[in-house]
Amino acid sequence: MKSVGLIVEYNPFHNGHAFHLQASKEAAEADVVIAVMSGNFLQRGEPALVSKWQRTKMALLNGVDIVFELPYRFATQKAETFANGAVSILDAVGCNSLCFGSESGDLSSFIQTIDYLKEQQNSFNENIKWHLDTGVSYPKALSLAFKQLPDANNYLDLAKPNNILGLEYIKAIQRQKSSVSPMTIPRKNADYHDEHFASATIASATSIRKAIFTDNEGQAEIDQYVPEQTKLLLKEYEQQFQRYHQWENYWSYLQFRLIHSSPSELREIYEMEEGLENRLQGAALVSDNFHKFMQQIKTKRYTWTRLQRLCVHILTNTKKEEMTRHSEKASYLRLLGMTSMGREYLNKKKSHLSLPLISKLASFKEKEINLDIKAARIYSLGIPSHLKNKMLRQEFEQPPIYIQEK
Amino acid sequence: MKSVGLIVEYNPFHNGHAFHLQASKEAAEADVVIAVMSGNFLQRGEPALVSKWQRTKMALLNGVDIVFELPYRFATQKAETFANGAVSILDAVGCNSLCFGSESGDLSSFIQTIDYLKEQQNSFNENIKWHLDTGVSYPKALSLAFKQLPDANNYLDLAKPNNILGLEYIKAIQRQKSSVSPMTIPRKNADYHDEHFASATIASATSIRKAIFTDNEGQAEIDQYVPEQTKLLLKEYEQQFQRYHQWENYWSYLQFRLIHSSPSELREIYEMEEGLENRLQGAALVSDNFHKFMQQIKTKRYTWTRLQRLCVHILTNTKKEEMTRHSEKASYLRLLGMTSMGREYLNKKKSHLSLPLISKLASFKEKEINLDIKAARIYSLGIPSHLKNKMLRQEFEQPPIYIQEK
Repeated sequence: MKSVGLIVEYNPFHNGHAFHLQASKEAAEADVVIAVMSGNFLQRGEPALVSKWQRTKMALLNGVDIVFELPYRFATQKAETFANGAVSILDAVGCNSLCFGSESGDLSSFIQTIDYLKEQQNSFNENIKWHLDTGVSYPKALSLAFKQLPDANNYLDLAKPNNILGLEYIKAIQRQKSSVSPMTIPRKNADYHDEHFASATIASATSIRKAIFTDNEGQAEIDQYVPEQTKLLLKEYEQQFQRYHQWENYWSYLQFRLIHSSPSELREIYEMEEGLENRLQGAALVSDNFHKFMQQIKTKRYTWTRLQRLCVHILTNTKKEEMTRHSEKASYLRLLGMTSMGREYLNKKKSHLSLPLISKLASFKEKEINLDIKAARIYSLGIPSHLKNKMLRQEFEQPPIYIQEK
Repeated sequence: MKSVGLIVEYNPFHNGHAFHLQASKEAAEADVVIAVMSGNFLQRGEPALVSKWQRTKMALLNGVDIVFELPYRFATQKAETFANGAVSILDAVGCNSLCFGSESGDLSSFIQTIDYLKEQQNSFNENIKWHLDTGVSYPKALSLAFKQLPDANNYLDLAKPNNILGLEYIKAIQRQKSSVSPMTIPRKNADYHDEHFASATIASATSIRKAIFTDNEGQAEIDQYVPEQTKLLLKEYEQQFQRYHQWENYWSYLQFRLIHSSPSELREIYEMEEGLENRLQGAALVSDNFHKFMQQIKTKRYTWTRLQRLCVHILTNTKKEEMTRHSEKASYLRLLGMTSMGREYLNKKKSHLSLPLISKLASFKEKEINLDIKAARIYSLGIPSHLKNKMLRQEFEQPPIYIQEK
């Protein structure tokens, strides 16, 4: 059985994802699609619109066969770490290929860019340092530093987050000497960050979330951009838990945490830089919602994403020490769900998996998974009080989602 | 100018308090009444119904001339520490006497009990230890141990919290070699812990709060038990902040804190005993309100009050180290309010005060007051989100309340 791996967030699963999934499966001539999906907190430092369980259902009902959770330790991270974790999971499960979307759809442009960056490593690093010293953010410095290199125009544009991700996937495969083959297919419309609907059927997840949150009719408006299953699962979730998750649901907890902690406690938080803790504490006292808080703390030096990730770590109380003591690769395979086809695949692979497969939390004791458990519990605080306890316990009680295919 | 000191919580100020105040003033032949009042969190480990500022107004409009805050470090504590702090403040301000209410109204019974306890110290301590080993709570062990002493019947009943407080006031005066004279007057009706209305005009604060929280008509029902000013100030507060404070307002923060902290972080909290942190974390996951949580964690060994105090310290993130590094006495006089008479008194005493007088927070840097500031900020999280920021800043901006007497 041939398998193709996808690295996803599905926040929520939309037509663009469905297109990418089918095209990847065809390109890879795969029988089985394996998704490595971020849990409840995402790469941009945001809570997912709906829980990982509901997003797993969306995936399985739309063509994915197996969903593994990308652990918190990798999911709410910069591209390099994110890629390391995701690739190591696909590798451990013996996945044949990893297929990601890109503007060009041309793998060689990625390989060439990586080789060129290796060649130019010294000047590139010097350029980055120089730009950082002017006070700009790291992604900005990276992109400016690259543009300064002599033949930069012949290579990928590092200002695009999707190109950075693609490069990091391939670099992770190379670094881990993985047998997973990288592949890329052209993306269809809609930029990653697009906030507006631009096509008749394909829209970015950002614009879909925006429609859901800004408009009472948002749910209706997104119908043409998401598969029927997504529509139903979103509605089901909202009925069950009375809301979708967004940062504002967690603002009072973040504010509380910032008010009641000492600066030295905050300095222990992962990604907290010296002095930033005072800025955050000051802003917490004068902001009455998350958005205003972010506007208060935002500077040229820190991107919005970087600060949001830091806020997630504050919320989950994730320490520097916890995030840095582990290896660069994942240490377990947390199975969130599978189809009957996915089960067949896993049964065949069972004895060859290079990492423990976790389908029940209660029977797994490795400390590293505590970060995922805590993240899930904190996530559950984002729904109304009388409903949250059900979700609090779900993390332990929920078996992997299973979808019997027709 | 002769002054009498009262140690109070005024949660809220009621007719019993008014009676005690007038009787104390007469008994002490005092011109000025000085109250040392707990801040926003009280001795029983509860948030005050309304803020310390509103309770200060109640006090000043009902006959008190000066209100000092009993710092958090003393207020949310067992009787001995509570008494130490309060007495040291009255002493520092040169107050002539401290008048407390008691069943007997007979000071000699307190003095005799203290002398008797000194005599019997060894057997008493052994008895306490023996009872503690059976697994009962400390107050229970104390009262049982006392009853075992040969002539216990001739002395005060240590099962009554008010007797314990009175004894501790006198012991604190003796220990501090204070020149404050202890006095006691008989209490009028209503036991400290009474939950029901028993008299036509005097009711316990407990029963008044109960009426306010359990009944829509509660406000009307309490009218006969509180002065007109209390009634108006309670209404004003509710209009301004849309609610009264009780533990349930803070439950989601406490739950969040227990879920996101590590056991070792919780072990640093003041009054946390080894092993209790696990019990609390487990209960937080299965309880959907504060009352259910308390029922989960309650044991024979820990009184409800003791556990509530611990919960306040968890909420305010107060560490063992912070609470034990200071002297047994207060180190500042935080002025919450005064009448014109109170001002006259303070002007006269100004140069003789043995502690710094704080009327503006911004100009005082001593670290110890940070506990009070944090407690006030955490307290402000108990009102609706869009109103809390106003209260958050109040702690720094609010000058002492001033009431010009006619």
